Amino acid sequence: MSPEARRNLEPLMAPRAIAVIGASRDPAKLGHAVVRNILESGFPGEVYPVNPKAGEILGRRVFADIGSVPGPVDLAVVTTPAVTVLGILEACGKKGVGAAVVISAGFRETGHEGLEAEHRMREIARAYGMVVVGPNCLGVIDTLAPYNASFAAGMPRKGHIAFMSQSGALCTAVLDMSLGRGVGFSRFVSLGNKADLDEVDFIEAWARDGATRVVMAYLEGIGDGRRFVEAARRLTREKPFVAVKSGTTAAGSRAVSSHTGTLAGSERAYEAAFRQAGIVRAASVEDLFDVAVAFSRQPLPGTGGVAVVTNAGGPGIMATDAAERAGLALAALAPATMEALSAALPPAASVLNPVDVLGDATAERYRRALEIVAADPGVGALLVILSPQVMTRAAETAEAVADVAERSGKTVLACFMGEAHVREGVELLARRGVPNYPVPERAVRVLRAMADQARRRAAPEPRIQRFDIDPAAVAAVLDRARAAGRLEIGEAEARAVMEACGIPVPPSRLCATADEAVAFAESVGYPVVMKIASPDILHKSDVGGVRLGVADAGDVRDTFDLLTLRTMRRFPRAEIWGCLVQKEVRGGREVIVGMNRDPQFGPLVMFGLGGIYVEVLRDVVFRLAPFSREEAEAMVGEIRSAALLHGVRGEPPRDMGALVEALLRVSQLVTDFEEIVEMDINPLVVFEEGRGVAGIDMRLVISGEKGRNR
Amino acid sequence: MSPEARRNLEPLMAPRAIAVIGASRDPAKLGHAVVRNILESGFPGEVYPVNPKAGEILGRRVFADIGSVPGPVDLAVVTTPAVTVLGILEACGKKGVGAAVVISAGFRETGHEGLEAEHRMREIARAYGMVVVGPNCLGVIDTLAPYNASFAAGMPRKGHIAFMSQSGALCTAVLDMSLGRGVGFSRFVSLGNKADLDEVDFIEAWARDGATRVVMAYLEGIGDGRRFVEAARRLTREKPFVAVKSGTTAAGSRAVSSHTGTLAGSERAYEAAFRQAGIVRAASVEDLFDVAVAFSRQPLPGTGGVAVVTNAGGPGIMATDAAERAGLALAALAPATMEALSAALPPAASVLNPVDVLGDATAERYRRALEIVAADPGVGALLVILSPQVMTRAAETAEAVADVAERSGKTVLACFMGEAHVREGVELLARRGVPNYPVPERAVRVLRAMADQARRRAAPEPRIQRFDIDPAAVAAVLDRARAAGRLEIGEAEARAVMEACGIPVPPSRLCATADEAVAFAESVGYPVVMKIASPDILHKSDVGGVRLGVADAGDVRDTFDLLTLRTMRRFPRAEIWGCLVQKEVRGGREVIVGMNRDPQFGPLVMFGLGGIYVEVLRDVVFRLAPFSREEAEAMVGEIRSAALLHGVRGEPPRDMGALVEALLRVSQLVTDFEEIVEMDINPLVVFEEGRGVAGIDMRLVISGEKGRNR
Repeated sequence: MSPEARRNLEPLMAPRAIAVIGASRDPAKLGHAVVRNILESGFPGEVYPVNPKAGEILGRRVFADIGSVPGPVDLAVVTTPAVTVLGILEACGKKGVGAAVVISAGFRETGHEGLEAEHRMREIARAYGMVVVGPNCLGVIDTLAPYNASFAAGMPRKGHIAFMSQSGALCTAVLDMSLGRGVGFSRFVSLGNKADLDEVDFIEAWARDGATRVVMAYLEGIGDGRRFVEAARRLTREKPFVAVKSGTTAAGSRAVSSHTGTLAGSERAYEAAFRQAGIVRAASVEDLFDVAVAFSRQPLPGTGGVAVVTNAGGPGIMATDAAERAGLALAALAPATMEALSAALPPAASVLNPVDVLGDATAERYRRALEIVAADPGVGALLVILSPQVMTRAAETAEAVADVAERSGKTVLACFMGEAHVREGVELLARRGVPNYPVPERAVRVLRAMADQARRRAAPEPRIQRFDIDPAAVAAVLDRARAAGRLEIGEAEARAVMEACGIPVPPSRLCATADEAVAFAESVGYPVVMKIASPDILHKSDVGGVRLGVADAGDVRDTFDLLTLRTMRRFPRAEIWGCLVQKEVRGGREVIVGMNRDPQFGPLVMFGLGGIYVEVLRDVVFRLAPFSREEAEAMVGEIRSAALLHGVRGEPPRDMGALVEALLRVSQLVTDFEEIVEMDINPLVVFEEGRGVAGIDMRLVISGEKGRNR
Repeated sequence: MSPEARRNLEPLMAPRAIAVIGASRDPAKLGHAVVRNILESGFPGEVYPVNPKAGEILGRRVFADIGSVPGPVDLAVVTTPAVTVLGILEACGKKGVGAAVVISAGFRETGHEGLEAEHRMREIARAYGMVVVGPNCLGVIDTLAPYNASFAAGMPRKGHIAFMSQSGALCTAVLDMSLGRGVGFSRFVSLGNKADLDEVDFIEAWARDGATRVVMAYLEGIGDGRRFVEAARRLTREKPFVAVKSGTTAAGSRAVSSHTGTLAGSERAYEAAFRQAGIVRAASVEDLFDVAVAFSRQPLPGTGGVAVVTNAGGPGIMATDAAERAGLALAALAPATMEALSAALPPAASVLNPVDVLGDATAERYRRALEIVAADPGVGALLVILSPQVMTRAAETAEAVADVAERSGKTVLACFMGEAHVREGVELLARRGVPNYPVPERAVRVLRAMADQARRRAAPEPRIQRFDIDPAAVAAVLDRARAAGRLEIGEAEARAVMEACGIPVPPSRLCATADEAVAFAESVGYPVVMKIASPDILHKSDVGGVRLGVADAGDVRDTFDLLTLRTMRRFPRAEIWGCLVQKEVRGGREVIVGMNRDPQFGPLVMFGLGGIYVEVLRDVVFRLAPFSREEAEAMVGEIRSAALLHGVRGEPPRDMGALVEALLRVSQLVTDFEEIVEMDINPLVVFEEGRGVAGIDMRLVISGEKGRNR
């Protein structure tokens, strides 16, 4: 069974009967809390407490084991000690249970044996076509079924957010916060140790789940990064996915020798993965709520800017400042809108955006202003700010805001600032689906995330372009090097890889004799660069093995002798193939295109300008390969020094098209050849507009095994 | 009366009798609300309603005018229409009223006449030795007196935070938020239009106010930037000052022609001002509360790192991530601490920092862990995280946290996550002075601000070093140029300014003839740079007026003729003084030191590397002059490209001492000569360690008037 196959989560999401294995009469035990929670959650199906010491729990008959339960069981919740769990799952499988939630702890968190038990758990699940949540989790809550198969006190409200968390402790905090904020969930899952079901399974299930509009997650680590990105990418074409990712762990212990390797790292990979998959990365659990609630209760903003309507100048300025910092455009109101506002508002009001309805604004004045602003086609979203003043009626104003939100169909967020004086209004907004934020900055941050999601939704699905690269030629180089035990590849061999990829390289030839070198130099024209060609010497310039600006035939002969003799003397054991002669490239802007294979997410491609821009300023961007042309273009534009490519200070603009194509070709190369673990083209020279690029030097590090992709 | 004289705010902060002018019997009128608020606020002194239509208001006798009030009046609150206000203030002055709060609107916000009235208001105040708050404000509240002389509903709690706001509407929101959060204030001032008293007067008064521990402000604009910085600097040596500054307005309409001018701007100036004055800049009103409350209720952290104690792994990781991003060190617990924790906690607990007391932690377990951690001398501050789980008792745990905070005397912040399940605990924490934050990220942000404040408090007071610059020589250059109507100064004249400042310049001479040029070149050695010397040509290299690498006597003669003849042909009207001959500087790293005079804050000095680092990467830092050596050193270290000065990629380290001294000399120059409105030394070349710097080119823009400083 392939790991990519979709799992059947139906028994988990719509069980008809639930068994609680480890049910207890002792109210201090988890096995009691779970039974009580299921019963209190209004679950309409059968509930079977299971415990060898039969009897009755909370008025329900207890069964000695799962096998003795009379009817079919879709979902089993297991709270028994770790040692019993595998046997119980086996019994569940035999009984035909579709899903198990293992709350019991004592698995991988306790060491190797626990991890082994988890592997076994997964095997049992697969063998019986069962799905397992956990172990070591808080449980699962579903407001659709509905049931609360967890030991968390309290049932969340019903809503459209599906939540999963890798931290059970955080689940309880999130649940408690959601109740305080009036936020509702569709599904609520504590992932635990993810022995069987993991984040990707839920992403896939919730993508198809009609009851879920938004997916919200707390993640610490991700099992299979590529599956995750693929699933998340599909999800976010349809539904927003907001996640906190905590724990910026090191990239792993493999020593890195390339620039890209040094600059990459797990955090960069996660950043790229989230971005490319369209996941909104929340900065905190508070931010997670802020964003998810808006997605679940308001439509995405249409085209047009943000209009701010406020009864207080100060917070209006703060909203404007925040929008500017977030790169969010404020709407320029149409003349007709401003005229209508002038007619409707007192003379001292501001009819520019932010629209200031003044401190004495009544709900009616807010309503008129909001209706006029919402009707402006240049307005994509509205932010309504209210500061409680003498004449302010927060609750009535909230009604007006909610009415306009409903009727206009536009995105409306509120910022009713304060506590006691606005509480009623805030509660009313929550009931009617208008998210409220205590300060304008938080609302603006949410609008930014919504605008990004809208743009993403509107953009065509990213297409991965394929180029005519020559896989046989690449494979030949890699195989030959591997066969010779060389896992670092440079010079002529690497150049052959670039050529096979369709990345132009300056004419060059490995010349075994001085005569050959002269003939080649004459054919391409002077000056040329000459380098000693030896598989045993990688850092040639450090050992005097490189000469630039070789100017004529005599110079070529002298240089050939100098380089070969010098190398023979210094490295008597080095194999010498001769000299590499290459036409010298003049002009152009040097950039680096590199790749580091992330253990979780695979090939992570880096781009930056060469030299100090990478080494000192670390002005680089990353994307997971393969990526689309749009992403490649974005990469080139994102570096701080991008202007240097577009032509500043009298320099000509560079050939951006050729640069983007080179990035795409590298993307294809590192995607197709999994054995390439690190790679730098440094420098890639980008010539003037229309003149293309040239890969001057490339280094590759390959693994000792062929990639699976071939 | 000098504007710097300290105003007497005693009648405002401790009035014995208050008159309300414009008092009304109509509950819908502000003049009624103010009387009611004063009476309800528990003000122990006399309250005199004043209104020509005498009678009684809320049981108090009404007086026809301020003159007829029988006893002395310290504070008058004015709510009458704008046209009456000047007359009323005059009458107040005659009566001997010490302070007036003008709530009435209709002044500068309505146009020029209103502004004139405000000037008059200020004159009246000064003439009678009275202080005036407003106009166009919400009023003033004082919890010490106590009184509520505002039309805001509700009295804030008593506390140690003094708050001022330039937005009246925001005052009401802040007041409401403070009541919800249990935050107390000492003084609460709505500044209004600041006709007389402004933010600086309150900063000065609150610096001396024993009841105030923290100053909190919402500011939109600042009147006199330099007074503000001075007053804030004095304040923050003693008390934290936290402020939201909103509204990033443009620097003004004066056209700017220098690099510094282009990159500077009001936002940069505010940033530098806040930084140098030690003000914590809050990102939102929420952040303002977060930080101010902690300062008001917890001691500043001592040396040592932050220890996190948590019952949930996830939030512990989030705290660690946030600390890392904020550059805040987590404490490395001492071996003895870890041993004690191991003995006190269950085996599965983590005794590394973050200390994980596990999900089933009782209040007692928290208490033991906290006591052990707080006793570690390497711990400067504690962050206690609690996620509500089955065994969690939030209120009891809050007691334990508060006990440890009190007994240990260390900084303790809490993060009890959730709502209903932690509410009682959170309320208890608030009562006992331990600030609580809903997510770890907000607590960490606050700890960062507290650590900064502690470091600032511990640092010696910044000292402005004076250098032996030659003011007469500088003045001579500036005066001569101004007399000739030239407000842009470059080349030889600017070089004289650098020399007068003690900034080394390469040997150079203005040579009127070719013979003179040859003689000078021979004396300093070749190669030399030659430039046309003309007061009418500023951008010499653009018009072919500069030649580098002039190599011998013949070359000097040819170049002299070429430059002068070419210039005469192209600019027949240009005055030509001859050629500037300068020894050519080789090697060294080019930097820019510039200055732009901010309308609010005065000289804003910029530093960055030359060329693309400034023009493309905008990698520059700013400080207000004059600044200390420590600030100059910080400037040099803050740019992203700082490593290029310390020596990377085989380059030698540069002479940082000489660079810092050059910055300090520039700081002194632009402080002493107010007429310098813009200045760039571009490039200043920084040679290898021990070899100093050389100012190659300088441009100055001066104002048409002599500076007042001279």
